[in-house]
Amino acid sequence: MTHQEKALSYAKENKEKFLDNLKEVLEIPSVSTDPAHKDDMLKTAEWLVEKLESLGMENIKIYPTPRHPVVYADWLHAKDAPTVLVYGHYDVQPEDPLDEWITPPFKPTQREASLHARGASDMKGQIVATLSAIESIVKNDDFPSNIKFMLEGEEEIGSPSLADFMESHKELLSADFCLNPDAGMLSADTPTITYALRGLAYAELHVTGPSHDLHSGLFGGAVRNPANTLMKLVGGMKDEDGKITLPGFYDKVRDVDAEERAELAKLPVDEALLREQTGSPALWGEKGYSPVEQIGARPTLDVNGMLSGFTGEGAKTVLPAKAMAKISMRLVPDQTPEEVYEQLRQYVKENAPEGVECEVKALHGGNPSISERDGVGVVAMSDAFEAVWGKAPLFKREGGSIPVVGDMQKILGIESVLTGFGLPDDRIHSPNEKLDLPTWYRGIDALIHFFYNLG
Amino acid sequence: MTHQEKALSYAKENKEKFLDNLKEVLEIPSVSTDPAHKDDMLKTAEWLVEKLESLGMENIKIYPTPRHPVVYADWLHAKDAPTVLVYGHYDVQPEDPLDEWITPPFKPTQREASLHARGASDMKGQIVATLSAIESIVKNDDFPSNIKFMLEGEEEIGSPSLADFMESHKELLSADFCLNPDAGMLSADTPTITYALRGLAYAELHVTGPSHDLHSGLFGGAVRNPANTLMKLVGGMKDEDGKITLPGFYDKVRDVDAEERAELAKLPVDEALLREQTGSPALWGEKGYSPVEQIGARPTLDVNGMLSGFTGEGAKTVLPAKAMAKISMRLVPDQTPEEVYEQLRQYVKENAPEGVECEVKALHGGNPSISERDGVGVVAMSDAFEAVWGKAPLFKREGGSIPVVGDMQKILGIESVLTGFGLPDDRIHSPNEKLDLPTWYRGIDALIHFFYNLG
Repeated sequence: MTHQEKALSYAKENKEKFLDNLKEVLEIPSVSTDPAHKDDMLKTAEWLVEKLESLGMENIKIYPTPRHPVVYADWLHAKDAPTVLVYGHYDVQPEDPLDEWITPPFKPTQREASLHARGASDMKGQIVATLSAIESIVKNDDFPSNIKFMLEGEEEIGSPSLADFMESHKELLSADFCLNPDAGMLSADTPTITYALRGLAYAELHVTGPSHDLHSGLFGGAVRNPANTLMKLVGGMKDEDGKITLPGFYDKVRDVDAEERAELAKLPVDEALLREQTGSPALWGEKGYSPVEQIGARPTLDVNGMLSGFTGEGAKTVLPAKAMAKISMRLVPDQTPEEVYEQLRQYVKENAPEGVECEVKALHGGNPSISERDGVGVVAMSDAFEAVWGKAPLFKREGGSIPVVGDMQKILGIESVLTGFGLPDDRIHSPNEKLDLPTWYRGIDALIHFFYNLG
Repeated sequence: MTHQEKALSYAKENKEKFLDNLKEVLEIPSVSTDPAHKDDMLKTAEWLVEKLESLGMENIKIYPTPRHPVVYADWLHAKDAPTVLVYGHYDVQPEDPLDEWITPPFKPTQREASLHARGASDMKGQIVATLSAIESIVKNDDFPSNIKFMLEGEEEIGSPSLADFMESHKELLSADFCLNPDAGMLSADTPTITYALRGLAYAELHVTGPSHDLHSGLFGGAVRNPANTLMKLVGGMKDEDGKITLPGFYDKVRDVDAEERAELAKLPVDEALLREQTGSPALWGEKGYSPVEQIGARPTLDVNGMLSGFTGEGAKTVLPAKAMAKISMRLVPDQTPEEVYEQLRQYVKENAPEGVECEVKALHGGNPSISERDGVGVVAMSDAFEAVWGKAPLFKREGGSIPVVGDMQKILGIESVLTGFGLPDDRIHSPNEKLDLPTWYRGIDALIHFFYNLG
């Protein structure tokens, strides 16, 4: 029996113990947004420290931040093996509305094959799966790769301290890549690796004209209307083919090659599914790309909100003094929020007419991220999935943003392997969050394979 | 001494009496919007009946309507003379904010040359001026023209009953033209006749797409965004030259001829004044027309309000399910709201893309109106101004809408001579409304001339 086989055997024999560990940490209500749970946050961090100690991890430390601490640990004695930085967050979403829970959110309860509790899937379950895989290995063997942990307590409130923490601990956190098990699977039968995330540049465009709201009868026709002007400006930001017209917008966009397009075409996401999920009468996007590519691999520009003048019931003949639109652009590598804000400003400068003043306010940005699909971490994870599920994972690009992934790429210079064993129907952020236990146990096995694949 | 001279002399001798009449009616708080003043409305109507009786008017009657009554009277014994329908409204705006009044709104108070009270200028003063001119004539002579009165009590609440009243009393109200002294003068030295008003077609455009608000990361790029779509639609409704692009929009627009343009160019309204009044950084409007023409003689399209998605503080990455804009078009003869609504619907039908649904809701329309500047009423009033002020009046087109004027043109088939003796600084609708008495007395004289000019 090889060491790897022994580890897999250990995992099989200790299913109950792993589950008890998970239940233990799920009982601590580590709701990061609620100051009343400050002690529970620390208690969770200390629980993690204890587990990491029991696994022989070193340099374990709770690093304070302005809000909730970061837990660090490492084990760096595998010669000629890569170093993986494991990212996780030990905080959870609030449990409201409490009365919709069938069993209490912080009393983990098994019903059929699922464990129900807040944080079961997002993401204490994923952290405990990783710790369980490591335990299965270290009880029988030296660890096959170098490993570091960075476990934060602020993901559910937007990770306000993490970028600073990374900036000031670059050396400590240096690694070959990051394992981030905070992404899920497309289904229990479909192991999934998310290798790219879109970034974000979120702005407000303000157009002001007259010094005060005017009577549209007394002045309409001789005065530039800020609302009409805003609509013309924003209306021109996308052409008939769904291309964005900001100057230079596509200059830095990495194209998707034929091989990647073939890979993306395998994803079980088609027009019918997207129409069902969105309730949209018809899909529409950038010409020449499939909906999956439009959402995952291509940038876009959406109005998120707009407001001007009179919006109540009935007819008020006001010519508004000002108009505002919230506009966000989803970015793909190698766009940056800073460059895109500048392109937006340039567009407005080139197209804004006389008679109004226009201002672009940058609100909130995040870098896009991408991992090479033939990188050491991705290949190790892909092979691990294949060993357990008997088939290669699907490779997915995600249209949303996980800022930590882009920040890590920018600050630490490392790519992330985004994966995990949560399922689409896990009701994360909602009442009755659950974790599918058969999938979770397969995930522990896959992680054992993953670490050996790195060695 | 001619009859006309006797009448002018009577007016000179009875200045105090006329003023006392005016004060008497100003003391009745005929606030039409406030149900608490329902009795005061009736009291004012009865006061008018008494005055009309004292002038020898006939067929005097208070016609009830769903809210406040219409006072009718006539005198139809002038052979071979035209019939003038005098329009007025005996209701006033609310007095709020009361504490900003220097003297109480319903205690008419003279300070220097002004009489201060709610309704002094808008428009009890104008009604009493007309009654005083008639009194000056009938005390010495038969009345030189035929005359009818239609005095309503709902102008300040949008004249909800008047169109129906006119529809059901077409015969009773038949006349050659209407005298409507509810418009003002450009200054005390500038007698003014407003001969055209713009109409209105006020609509809402609703664009709906997804069945619910979506996450802009998870779906943005493959779904038609209703806010972007609305902005593109509305942004295209005006071209770079300020021309409206709705199909057929200008087909019925009467052009202004060279003579009229020369007349309008005399108005003391220039770019500097409009910039000051609006606080707009620069004026802009339909190419080829002056600002005065753009406001008075040309149609336009303004967004009055717009709303979609998230409009609070900060960045919410929502892809909104719907978007709405309030859009109003100011119309000029011979456009009609019905036709313009149809043009708007046609534009939306031609330009709305797949993936969204668009609906145009017609909210509120009013017909434009114009009076021939060589019509009998306009010439009589113009000559009357010249006799009293020693100069011809300025002819003005008004950008706003007075629905009763358009409705009268449509229902009764008659044009209106819009004039009056209010001044721009009379603070109508505001605290400390006032009437300039020297101008008012000149107005009474002008009306005496006017009625003799008709005879």
